[in-house]
Amino acid sequence: MEASSDIFPRFTELFRTTFGLDEAEYTRLLACFHRRLLPKKAYYLTAGDVTRGKAYLNKGCTRTYVVEESGKEHVLFFSFEDWWVGDFQSYHTLQPGTQYVQALEDCELFWISRDDFTRLAAEIPKLQAWDQVKGRKSMFATLNRLSEVKTMNAEERYLNLIEKHPAINQRISLQDIAAFLDIEPQSLSRMRKRLSER
Amino acid sequence: MEASSDIFPRFTELFRTTFGLDEAEYTRLLACFHRRLLPKKAYYLTAGDVTRGKAYLNKGCTRTYVVEESGKEHVLFFSFEDWWVGDFQSYHTLQPGTQYVQALEDCELFWISRDDFTRLAAEIPKLQAWDQVKGRKSMFATLNRLSEVKTMNAEERYLNLIEKHPAINQRISLQDIAAFLDIEPQSLSRMRKRLSER
Repeated sequence: MEASSDIFPRFTELFRTTFGLDEAEYTRLLACFHRRLLPKKAYYLTAGDVTRGKAYLNKGCTRTYVVEESGKEHVLFFSFEDWWVGDFQSYHTLQPGTQYVQALEDCELFWISRDDFTRLAAEIPKLQAWDQVKGRKSMFATLNRLSEVKTMNAEERYLNLIEKHPAINQRISLQDIAAFLDIEPQSLSRMRKRLSER
Repeated sequence: MEASSDIFPRFTELFRTTFGLDEAEYTRLLACFHRRLLPKKAYYLTAGDVTRGKAYLNKGCTRTYVVEESGKEHVLFFSFEDWWVGDFQSYHTLQPGTQYVQALEDCELFWISRDDFTRLAAEIPKLQAWDQVKGRKSMFATLNRLSEVKTMNAEERYLNLIEKHPAINQRISLQDIAAFLDIEPQSLSRMRKRLSER
């Protein structure tokens, strides 16, 4: 991709300011990224795919879910602008993944192949350090989600979700939020009504 | 600690064979480890503690749990020989942790401070690489646990647990296994009976 920081200010900020890449490093990095458009409902990944790159979500939102044997879907995460999507385990092991990543809105992704990223990270230590920090942060988030799923009831988890993402009800359907909370859509509907009457 | 590979063969194997430290590097590393005995029921960590080191579990087993507001305990993981215990997030952020780590048997831990480990890892790149691989593996394990909790019922999760740890019923109490599965001890008791009659 070519540099044009007015189009993706957060992306530029992430690598220039937060990670302190100089202009030459940033230009080299940017040259390895590819812009990919993912229309609403299209899949970035399905179970069985190998994750061969990192994808920065510049616009839109996605849901990452797994499917139980009976066919029921369980949403693990929603991702929004400035997040990275993909099956982390598959990326590192190159084994087929277990996750589905589907666009819930028209999405714009900036994609870099694992090979290009690995090569650049070996040349630019700041990228390597960033990758490690990011890996840790997603580990914390996953651990916190596991604690949350185990210790909180659906209403507490719903309140947590809207506290973190106040606009989520405008962007994500009742069905998907219910699949994130592992409850039936009707129960979520009743819960919303009850909470709005408080 | 002093080298004496007949006492901790797995530990020696991990660093000498798996990570390829040479004898001088291994001796330097070992000198920074401290042996700590943790009697059954004692705590290695309680919520609010900051994790200031890494602890290798050489003998025994522990449970890592969180407590919900009502006081109910939820076991996130059990750890056995050759695992590392601690609150990963607290170790990296130096913020008070949320986890309890309690000995379920008399435990022997090999402990190294965060400061010593960080210094050694800067000097010995193989240690740094190992730390990154280990971080990833625990990320995979946590993500798989989250999927499991969301997609499998208690019986499937119990069968998974005993497949991974065939001797678990001899080492870990019914109460703790029930707290791991988030079911009542009576339900686990009935489940075991039902499965044994198959």
